[in-house]
Order: sequence, then structure tokens, then C-alpha cells
Amino acid sequence: MKLLQERIRRDGIVKDGNVLKVDNFLNHQMDIELFNEMGKEFKRLFEVNRIDKILTIEASGIGIACIVAQYFNVPVVFAKKSQSINIDGEVYATKIESFTHKKVYDVIVSKKYISPGEHILIIDDFLANGCAVAGLIDIIQNAGAIVEGVGIAVEKGFQQGGQLLRDKGVRVESLAIIESMDAAAGTIEFR
Amino acid sequence: MKLLQERIRRDGIVKDGNVLKVDNFLNHQMDIELFNEMGKEFKRLFEVNRIDKILTIEASGIGIACIVAQYFNVPVVFAKKSQSINIDGEVYATKIESFTHKKVYDVIVSKKYISPGEHILIIDDFLANGCAVAGLIDIIQNAGAIVEGVGIAVEKGFQQGGQLLRDKGVRVESLAIIESMDAAAGTIEFR
Repeated sequence: MKLLQERIRRDGIVKDGNVLKVDNFLNHQMDIELFNEMGKEFKRLFEVNRIDKILTIEASGIGIACIVAQYFNVPVVFAKKSQSINIDGEVYATKIESFTHKKVYDVIVSKKYISPGEHILIIDDFLANGCAVAGLIDIIQNAGAIVEGVGIAVEKGFQQGGQLLRDKGVRVESLAIIESMDAAAGTIEFR
Repeated sequence: MKLLQERIRRDGIVKDGNVLKVDNFLNHQMDIELFNEMGKEFKRLFEVNRIDKILTIEASGIGIACIVAQYFNVPVVFAKKSQSINIDGEVYATKIESFTHKKVYDVIVSKKYISPGEHILIIDDFLANGCAVAGLIDIIQNAGAIVEGVGIAVEKGFQQGGQLLRDKGVRVESLAIIESMDAAAGTIEFR
């Protein structure tokens, strides 16, 4: 998606250790107009798919997922990163390792909000090693629901997550795939 | 807002300890159509105000804030609940006590995303004791920006947060204010 690539080139900041900061428009400050363009693009990509619900994970996936949901007319469910005393009843749970925060989260979704046979679209802001998406897929499959696809804003193509998911037959659509980045030169190459 | 009150009566669950669970449509599963109606109502309430940006706090404020932002054509910034290694540079920080989770969070916003003189609308899903909103106001004032108002989906009118904020001259608009709840009878009275 050209608009997103241009925005990443303009406002993204490449840091040492293959860190790409896009907190100017994607995951701290959020450009809602851009999110709407992303929503239209995801709708175009998953036009023929049956989508009953969007699943994302807190926190930075939520904004994108809610705007995207408007193009599919479906509700959004977000997976929570630790057991809240306000979530009662039974939950689907999985563990997700975050390399950014260097810890393992327990991630839960109430059983009430994913039903067997539902067709689910996963939406998230970033795909790198793929742990978050793999955890969401685990939850969906435990619920007896169907993973219709995965829509990602920014994929780090030089990390293995996207390839691992595609090799398993999961349909992954990333609006911008980064082939390589250079912190010293500040350059970004897209696939 | 009648639509939200009806939805709370229909799908809200009153639990012991003055807990109201609205995770069916507000803060775990999210009804995006309802959020759009809330966005229209907040726009009507803050029609004459200058709003440059919406500030919310992760995680459950983000979805509402993003949908509401479409009616103001402004970006959303969400305050983060702990220092991430991906947030660099300087931040505005405050401490917020969560009674739900029984802990104190460090809450931060990058200095890049709130500027002196900006007119900010705070949006959140719940207002009870008011700690989260007070923390966001603290951050906005530290930035030299202006708190234009506070838009809340559900206010627990029997807790002190709303009154304390209004006594300080903060304009608080809550779409549903709960006067009292009865867990045994499962009843909810609105103000």
C-alpha cells in the first residue's frame, strides 16, 4: 500500500537492533484518516471472504481493528494481556512472548466472544516473529472458529513470522513489508 | 444517551462490589456501530469547542477514541501504562491507581505528541473514582496544553470521580450516568 509505505519513509525512524518506530502515526499517536485508507485496502483484499468478527490484541492493534471493522460491519474483540478480575467465566488462554518488552504474557479472550464456526479476521499493527498472531490463531482454533486471514499494517519481512504463517497455509496480507532497514543511513527498503 | 442506556440495561451485568460488566459491547467485544453513535453524540456536545487532538489511555479507551476522532477529524494519542523500550526521548509521566487491577501504573505520553497550546478532548470508557482522567489531565497540563473537556461512555455517578472533576471546573460529559445498581436484583438506575 503506497500511502503507508510513503508514510513509513517520511515519519518512520529506524533504530539500532532492527527497531522501526512508527509511533508518530501508528501506535502511540494514531492517524485515523490513514487507518481508514488501510480499512478500505483490507476490505478490498478480503472482499470475497466471509468475515464475522475481527480479533486483535491490546493495545496497539485496537485502533486499527476498530476503524477496519467499519468496512466489514462486524464487531471487534481484543485479546487481553493478563487476567483481569473484571473478566469472569471461562476464557481461552495462550502465552505470547514479546521481544519488544522481553516478557511472556498470558493472553485471554472470553469464551463468550468467539464462537465455534465464526469466521475471524486477525488485525494487528506489526508482524515480526509472529508470536502474537500465532497466539491469536491458537485461541481461534481452540474456540472451533475459522481463521479467515491476517491483516497486518507493517511486516518486518526480514524476520520469520510472515514466512512461518504462510508456510502453514495462513493467508497473511501486510500493507507494507520491509525488506531491509539501515539505522546508520536511516533507509528502508520495501519488498 | 438513550441508546447506550438501553444497551447497558440489556447487556450489562451487575456484580457484587459495584462492578458493572459491559464487556459484551464496550471493552472486550466492541460494537463499532454503537461507538459511531457515541461519536456523533460527543461531536454534538463539543460542537463549538476547538479540539485539536483526542487523548485516551490504553487499552479499553482506544477503540472508542478512534471512532470518536472521525467526527472531529483529529488524531488520537493513547497514554501507555508502562515504559516501553520502544518509546524513546522524553515523556510526560504520571501515576494512576487502578482499583480494578489493584495496582499503581506509571502512565506516559511522548512529549512529541502533546504540544503547548493544543486543545485536547479526553475520551475514556469508564469514569468511577476519576484517577485515570486526573492522570491524563496532569499530563496535558504539564505539556502546557488545554483540557477542552472529558467525554466518558459510562460514569458511575455513585462514585466521586465525576463530582471531583466538575468541582474543579472540568467539563465532563458522560453518555450514561449510573445512579445506583443492585447486584441481587440485577437492576440499574440512571441519573
